[in-house]
Amino acid sequence: MRGRARYRAFMPRYALKIEYDGGPFAGWQRQADQPSVQGAIEAALARLEPGAHTIAAAGRTDAGVHATGQVAHADLTKNWDPFRLCEALNYHLKPNPVAIVACARVDEDFHARFSANERRYLFRLVSRRAPMVLERGTVWQVQNVLNADAMREAAAYLIGHHDFTTFRATMCQAKSPVKTLDEITLEEVEIPHGTEFRFTLRARSFLHNQVRSIVGTLERVGAGSWAPEDVAKALAAKDRSACGPVSPPHGLYLTGVGYPQDPFC
Amino acid sequence: MRGRARYRAFMPRYALKIEYDGGPFAGWQRQADQPSVQGAIEAALARLEPGAHTIAAAGRTDAGVHATGQVAHADLTKNWDPFRLCEALNYHLKPNPVAIVACARVDEDFHARFSANERRYLFRLVSRRAPMVLERGTVWQVQNVLNADAMREAAAYLIGHHDFTTFRATMCQAKSPVKTLDEITLEEVEIPHGTEFRFTLRARSFLHNQVRSIVGTLERVGAGSWAPEDVAKALAAKDRSACGPVSPPHGLYLTGVGYPQDPFC
Repeated sequence: MRGRARYRAFMPRYALKIEYDGGPFAGWQRQADQPSVQGAIEAALARLEPGAHTIAAAGRTDAGVHATGQVAHADLTKNWDPFRLCEALNYHLKPNPVAIVACARVDEDFHARFSANERRYLFRLVSRRAPMVLERGTVWQVQNVLNADAMREAAAYLIGHHDFTTFRATMCQAKSPVKTLDEITLEEVEIPHGTEFRFTLRARSFLHNQVRSIVGTLERVGAGSWAPEDVAKALAAKDRSACGPVSPPHGLYLTGVGYPQDPFC
Repeated sequence: MRGRARYRAFMPRYALKIEYDGGPFAGWQRQADQPSVQGAIEAALARLEPGAHTIAAAGRTDAGVHATGQVAHADLTKNWDPFRLCEALNYHLKPNPVAIVACARVDEDFHARFSANERRYLFRLVSRRAPMVLERGTVWQVQNVLNADAMREAAAYLIGHHDFTTFRATMCQAKSPVKTLDEITLEEVEIPHGTEFRFTLRARSFLHNQVRSIVGTLERVGAGSWAPEDVAKALAAKDRSACGPVSPPHGLYLTGVGYPQDPFC
């Protein structure tokens, strides 16, 4: 074990910024029998340096969830020029809908997951009668009209330091349900024949299904089924069964990960 | 023939505004052995009123070309409430990536193609090293850097009344190559790790492949292979072989059709 640790110390570490369409994947995490984003990137790494690779990501996104700013790190044996590593990985990632958009050499004490001090998510919710055909699979579409002000009022109850048990998947493995939600903002954008509601959420870390549980509940507020203060009551209940419906995954994007020092700058 | 014409006079006519992802289709036009947008809509109409249907569209887009504002008209036998007709067609169009976004009852002298006095197109060209994964199939991506000012300078030579033989497919069936191009504007938008160039083109009508021939040529100007004035020379040559490369179809969108009186207002 010590020998391996000493050997690892000589492997150059690279941070990768990753975009992907989560649609065809069973999620970030490698699985024996299903396609995963991690598996696709590790397979591309094996084309560059034969053997098994294990990469670690800042956020292990669920099946169907997209990313525009996922961050992972990989240990390699050769000294790669970051630009060439990026190009070579993108070549071998084809035709998977996964792209390495930036690559940087980092110190061995950088860890994509444990060094991260902020995660940012975008959730795209569209209200429109006619089906979304050009953006199918990249937004959550509902057909009812939604009230943005009511959703904003409800979201305000969730900002800050709270026990988020209500908005946490029962399978969540986090040690504590207490988290600090630094931001939920909602931008309302007119689109042809409908309206898009863009939720931005920001926190040091999130519980499993927290964003989808929050957005699914806020949608009910927007639709008028819930009053904004019902969200405050649901939060105070600290009870998973008090949560509204969990939104589908395909409107959700991991857009960025914060570190004390940005490895890509 | 006269009997049919008299019978048709009693059929209510509807204008349909249509969005589609051109990716899976061999184009707008119905074909015996390949999927087409026209064929998908006519099949949906046949689910509402059994029998053969023939619809006419403002622009017969090529394979792979998208639309956000295509217009077609259909003659039906029943008096349909436009909202219900829209909903019923969208129901039967599933799972095709085709949506009826608006529907209106129109007079029998309205013709989606022959009444139109303006067509508007958007072309999305992206310059970025890393592959576009979330928008694959909806933009034309190049990896070289592009100069927007040079493309704008070149585009200016094309605005106005010209013989567009150079920018016309050899298979084009239009009677004359002389057209008036009312607008080419170019918006430069920063996107993550790249730049999107959004070309807007507007004319009473376009020749076959005219937009793709123009954008493909302007991209060469942006890349520095052509000087802006080379586009003026190519236009003056009135020779198809003077054209630059034709851009691929999947960055092109028919965004709107103009009529003396907007049927959807």
